[in-house]
Amino acid sequence: MDDQPDGPTGADLAIMAAALAEAERGAAEGGVPIGAALVEDGAVVATGRNRRVQQGDPIAHGEMDCLRAAGRRRGYRRTTLYTTLSPCMMCAGTIVQFGIPRVVVGENATFGGNEEFLRSRGVEVVVLGDRRCEALMRRFQAERPEVWNEDIME
Amino acid sequence: MDDQPDGPTGADLAIMAAALAEAERGAAEGGVPIGAALVEDGAVVATGRNRRVQQGDPIAHGEMDCLRAAGRRRGYRRTTLYTTLSPCMMCAGTIVQFGIPRVVVGENATFGGNEEFLRSRGVEVVVLGDRRCEALMRRFQAERPEVWNEDIME
Repeated sequence: MDDQPDGPTGADLAIMAAALAEAERGAAEGGVPIGAALVEDGAVVATGRNRRVQQGDPIAHGEMDCLRAAGRRRGYRRTTLYTTLSPCMMCAGTIVQFGIPRVVVGENATFGGNEEFLRSRGVEVVVLGDRRCEALMRRFQAERPEVWNEDIME
Repeated sequence: MDDQPDGPTGADLAIMAAALAEAERGAAEGGVPIGAALVEDGAVVATGRNRRVQQGDPIAHGEMDCLRAAGRRRGYRRTTLYTTLSPCMMCAGTIVQFGIPRVVVGENATFGGNEEFLRSRGVEVVVLGDRRCEALMRRFQAERPEVWNEDIME
C-alpha cells in the first residue's frame, strides 16, 4: 500500500510529522499553525511555518516560508513539498511557478479547493487525511477565527 | 481616453513611474529589475521590488515584496497592484488569493501568460505597453540570462 502510485509512502508520513512539528511550533508562538517541508531525493532541504502573526507578513504562509528558507535554487524537479494544510491559491500558484512536481497535503477537511488546479497543471497531489493536522487547525479556527479569516482573506 | 473602462488612467501612469523607480533601484543593486506598488483609493500603500539576488529569497518577486511591505491587512478590495512586468504564476495566484481586483502591468512583451488566468478569476488586467519597463527588462535579460532564467524557473 505504501508505494502505490499517487499514494503516500512511509517516508511521506515521517516527513509530514516534521511539517506538523513546525505547525505546532507556530501554534506555540501564537501563530497560524501550518507547517511545511521541502524534500529533495528523500532529504529535507528546508522546513517552514506560517509566520503572518510572528513577522506581520501576509505572504509568509507555511509553504512560502519553507521555500524562502530553502533559498535560491536552479530548480525543483526532484522535490516534494509537504504541507499540513491544503495550499491556498498563492501557494498553489507558487508550486506551479517553481515547477514542484509533487505535493503531499496533511489534510484538506478544514481548507482546500486548489487540488484540481494543481493537478490540471501536472502536479501530483497526495492528501493524507491526517487527523493530528486537522485537529490542530480546528482548534485554531475555533479559538482565533479573526486571524484565520485574515489569513485566507475571507 | 484616460477613463475608459478597463483602460489606464492618468493616475495609473504616474504610479507606474513609482513602480519603475523601484525596478531601477533593483537594477542598481544588481537585482532583477522588476518593481511594484500597491494603491488603495488612489494612495500608495507600499512599494517593492524583486530581491531574489539582494536577499537570496526566491519568493521575493516585486509584487510579493510589495505585499509583504504593506503588512497585515483585513482586505484588498479597494486596491490596485502595479507591476512593471506581467505577473508570474506565483504572483498571479497571490493576487487571486488576496482578492486584489485590479492589476496594472507595465509590459508583457518580455514575459507574460497569466493575464487570462487572472481575468478568468475576475481580476481586471490593464497592460500599459510601457517602453521604459520593457527596455529595462530586455537589457537585464541580455546581460544576466542565468539570473533571469533562475527567477522564472526556466
